[in-house]
Amino acid sequence: MATEKDPESLLKLKLRRVIFGTDTPAGRYFDISLMICIVMSVLIVFLDTVAKVHERYGDIIVVLEWCFTVIFTIEYILRLYCSAKPLSYARSFYGVVDLLSVLPSYLALFFPGANFTLVIRILRLFRIFRVLKLLRYLSEGNLLLRAMMQSGRKVFIFFFSVSLIVVVLSAIMYVVEGPNNGFSSIPKSIYWTIVTITTVGYGDITPQTPLGQAIAAFTMLLGYSIIAIPTGILTAEISQEIGRSRDLRRCSNCLKVGHDPNALYCDHCGSELESEL
Amino acid sequence: MATEKDPESLLKLKLRRVIFGTDTPAGRYFDISLMICIVMSVLIVFLDTVAKVHERYGDIIVVLEWCFTVIFTIEYILRLYCSAKPLSYARSFYGVVDLLSVLPSYLALFFPGANFTLVIRILRLFRIFRVLKLLRYLSEGNLLLRAMMQSGRKVFIFFFSVSLIVVVLSAIMYVVEGPNNGFSSIPKSIYWTIVTITTVGYGDITPQTPLGQAIAAFTMLLGYSIIAIPTGILTAEISQEIGRSRDLRRCSNCLKVGHDPNALYCDHCGSELESEL
Amino acid sequence: MATEKDPESLLKLKLRRVIFGTDTPAGRYFDISLMICIVMSVLIVFLDTVAKVHERYGDIIVVLEWCFTVIFTIEYILRLYCSAKPLSYARSFYGVVDLLSVLPSYLALFFPGANFTLVIRILRLFRIFRVLKLLRYLSEGNLLLRAMMQSGRKVFIFFFSVSLIVVVLSAIMYVVEGPNNGFSSIPKSIYWTIVTITTVGYGDITPQTPLGQAIAAFTMLLGYSIIAIPTGILTAEISQEIGRSRDLRRCSNCLKVGHDPNALYCDHCGSELESEL
Amino acid sequence: MATEKDPESLLKLKLRRVIFGTDTPAGRYFDISLMICIVMSVLIVFLDTVAKVHERYGDIIVVLEWCFTVIFTIEYILRLYCSAKPLSYARSFYGVVDLLSVLPSYLALFFPGANFTLVIRILRLFRIFRVLKLLRYLSEGNLLLRAMMQSGRKVFIFFFSVSLIVVVLSAIMYVVEGPNNGFSSIPKSIYWTIVTITTVGYGDITPQTPLGQAIAAFTMLLGYSIIAIPTGILTAEISQEIGRSRDLRRCSNCLKVGHDPNALYCDHCGSELESEL
Repeated sequence: MATEKDPESLLKLKLRRVIFGTDTPAGRYFDISLMICIVMSVLIVFLDTVAKVHERYGDIIVVLEWCFTVIFTIEYILRLYCSAKPLSYARSFYGVVDLLSVLPSYLALFFPGANFTLVIRILRLFRIFRVLKLLRYLSEGNLLLRAMMQSGRKVFIFFFSVSLIVVVLSAIMYVVEGPNNGFSSIPKSIYWTIVTITTVGYGDITPQTPLGQAIAAFTMLLGYSIIAIPTGILTAEISQEIGRSRDLRRCSNCLKVGHDPNALYCDHCGSELESEL
Repeated sequence: MATEKDPESLLKLKLRRVIFGTDTPAGRYFDISLMICIVMSVLIVFLDTVAKVHERYGDIIVVLEWCFTVIFTIEYILRLYCSAKPLSYARSFYGVVDLLSVLPSYLALFFPGANFTLVIRILRLFRIFRVLKLLRYLSEGNLLLRAMMQSGRKVFIFFFSVSLIVVVLSAIMYVVEGPNNGFSSIPKSIYWTIVTITTVGYGDITPQTPLGQAIAAFTMLLGYSIIAIPTGILTAEISQEIGRSRDLRRCSNCLKVGHDPNALYCDHCGSELESEL
Repeated sequence: MATEKDPESLLKLKLRRVIFGTDTPAGRYFDISLMICIVMSVLIVFLDTVAKVHERYGDIIVVLEWCFTVIFTIEYILRLYCSAKPLSYARSFYGVVDLLSVLPSYLALFFPGANFTLVIRILRLFRIFRVLKLLRYLSEGNLLLRAMMQSGRKVFIFFFSVSLIVVVLSAIMYVVEGPNNGFSSIPKSIYWTIVTITTVGYGDITPQTPLGQAIAAFTMLLGYSIIAIPTGILTAEISQEIGRSRDLRRCSNCLKVGHDPNALYCDHCGSELESEL
Repeated sequence: MATEKDPESLLKLKLRRVIFGTDTPAGRYFDISLMICIVMSVLIVFLDTVAKVHERYGDIIVVLEWCFTVIFTIEYILRLYCSAKPLSYARSFYGVVDLLSVLPSYLALFFPGANFTLVIRILRLFRIFRVLKLLRYLSEGNLLLRAMMQSGRKVFIFFFSVSLIVVVLSAIMYVVEGPNNGFSSIPKSIYWTIVTITTVGYGDITPQTPLGQAIAAFTMLLGYSIIAIPTGILTAEISQEIGRSRDLRRCSNCLKVGHDPNALYCDHCGSELESEL
């Protein structure tokens, strides 16, 4: 690659470092300004749904939206152009997301109709995929993810058991309270049970009979106490992850592991620890 | 048993491996298709309670229900037939559950009456026991259960203390707010206290007097802080369980596992542990 | 005490073992039947506040109440009679509670009046002190209490900080939303903030302005995240307590502590552990 | 400084010890009485916003307020007078807070007008800064703060991910439920999502369509389970902090504290630790 000397290749290389890379000042500036653009374009879509804002600033918002659409289109073309393997970029998750974040605006031009305003609004919401681009800028959170992966199986069993309890309680509440008190069907009763067991408690459906209130109270106490289980599982896993990431050095004399990261000597036998892990 | 050679015994043995066993491909297919049937039959009962679905698809649902009833009846008879000890199966928890999940449909045939529709609906709900059959397919979750067992006593004391606090707060709120503000009786006041202390907060009964609101605020803060206690207990126990299950070395002398990661000698028999796991 | 031989002393001694002691079968029967009486008498007071129950079973409840009052009076007199130091019992916490749990019924006889019904109802509620007697039968929960004591200081700082945040947020919400949206005064605004920060969310007062809703959303996220702090503190303390209560034996050879309770040999040096701690 | 002998310098020194210091009985009395004044003056401002209290005790409250204003003014002047570097005090955070807590009352005198009552009320609320003075009296909570600092990065990633989920769910709910069911704009939909995911659940906006209720149920379960993550992170960090601060042995060679309870040798310099703490 060092032997390629035609100017186009050099331009591509430079662009690639700026657009895909994050190790040069220019690359970092590009990423930060892109992030600001993404957040602002999403904010504009959101504010446009407020009736008052749409009335007063509707025109400016349309202009701003087209600006962002053009910016993101240019960015997408540049990415395709300077990528080492354009096709594999276009097929990658972020390639698709990048395309989806500019397409809606163009589609709205070619498919106008009676229900034009609504359609364009729904299409606009696909822009939310722009937000997902932000994830690209995250390289932290691995510890969290690993702890969640490891507790995944236990959490699945937990949610499976909770589902069974929810289903049983929903059926009982449907029989006890009945359609007259808002429990018009078992699916609605399931909705109520989830609202209650997660301690959200909207209050749009509430038990009216004494027996229903007793079962509701039991459901709440259950939700209140089983909230402890996923917390307990995850806490234990995170503790393990933190403890493990603390130090991997094993004392060559007494074989002890789990030293303090600042330790110079083994705290059990007093022999020196090697600095490389 | 290896000497039994009449064809019926062989059929029984084969059937038993498929129906009760899970170690052959056929057995696994049987279990999975049974699980799908159970979930679908429960789903149908649930959807039938939605007025619109009942109107439009009521007839199909009746047919489907009878299909599932027949399927589960055949399954129950086969289980009885191929079981090594049919009577002990019929008396076991799952035997009773299997029977209860088919009986309602047949009972509805023989006991029709004026309140026929309601009765069949209530009977149908017993079908929920079918869901409990799902539990049979769970062999995980032992770690969770063990941690819960070990923290059981502490959690009991916790809930006992919470009950006392709830009762005292309910009586105080009944006196402070009175029947005019929705606290019509102490049992209803207890319902309100549980709704508040578990942070559910329906809002169907809310304190109106300044003093009542102050006590309510205190109740909320109490609930908010004591939510920590069961979490703390369970987390500590799960941490212990996970920590113990982590070390994989097995003592070559007494075969004990679950040593401390730093252990050099088996704490049961005192013989040295190999450093490689 | 062994030389006292008059029959009265012997009766006192026997009675004392039954009433105050819990180490004889008779003493245990006495305690259990007393507990059942306490729970039942409280239940009756509670059920009497339900209008329908009061109408139908009011007379029976009055009779039952007097039965319990007589039983508890006899019990109180017996406790005074057979106690080694009657005066110190009468002055002790439980002595006062025992007295307060029978007095209301008698006071209601001597102070009838126009507002008779209401007064007796309020007096009745003092019976709730009977419930507190139940605490006498608890000797568990020390580990929990110790963990709470040790985390007490940290939890106090936590609640102090939360109070400051609540006060500041309440004042801001009072200015932003104002009396027209239900935030009629700062104390009421504090009530709303506590309802929100503890994630109870009655919905009797909700923000109406966009700015108010933004601040409310911030308050919720704050409450949602700081819920972690007392849990974290308590969990860490309980973990320490459980870890500490695991084993106190110190290896006489290598001075290691924290062995498994089942350990027979030190897992670090392999030397035998003394069985006495 | 020991050579300064003019009486003014001595007075300044004495005052400084009382006002800024906390190591003499006089200094401690000064601080405690100041704290009581601060809390009382805030309480008065709060109670004055209650309509009934304002009507009946409005005059007394004005007098009391002026008393507190005068007290705090004198205190501020004394602090300026006896401070070693008056200017740096005036510029410090607490200097500004002290000034802001007396200014509103005086400003209200010079800028009366038509909207006088409202303005003075808003100005009064700045008095809340008086509460912040309380923070000066806190030196505890360092352990908590350190644990929070160390978990700060992980918590940030957590809240970033939650924000993304909230934004996506809000947009979906806006499309599913629409303006007719209270989801009048995406910002309002975000407000609803936060109310739901934090399990607050006011119930002022609730989903009406079956699909909306299903998504709402999913949102609740999500909020219910991810509540575990910050708790897990913080608990693990606090456990580490407490564990480290438990062991009281100080290395006699390098003076390091915070060894592992099982440590025999200092892990910093390798010298032996005394077994008695």
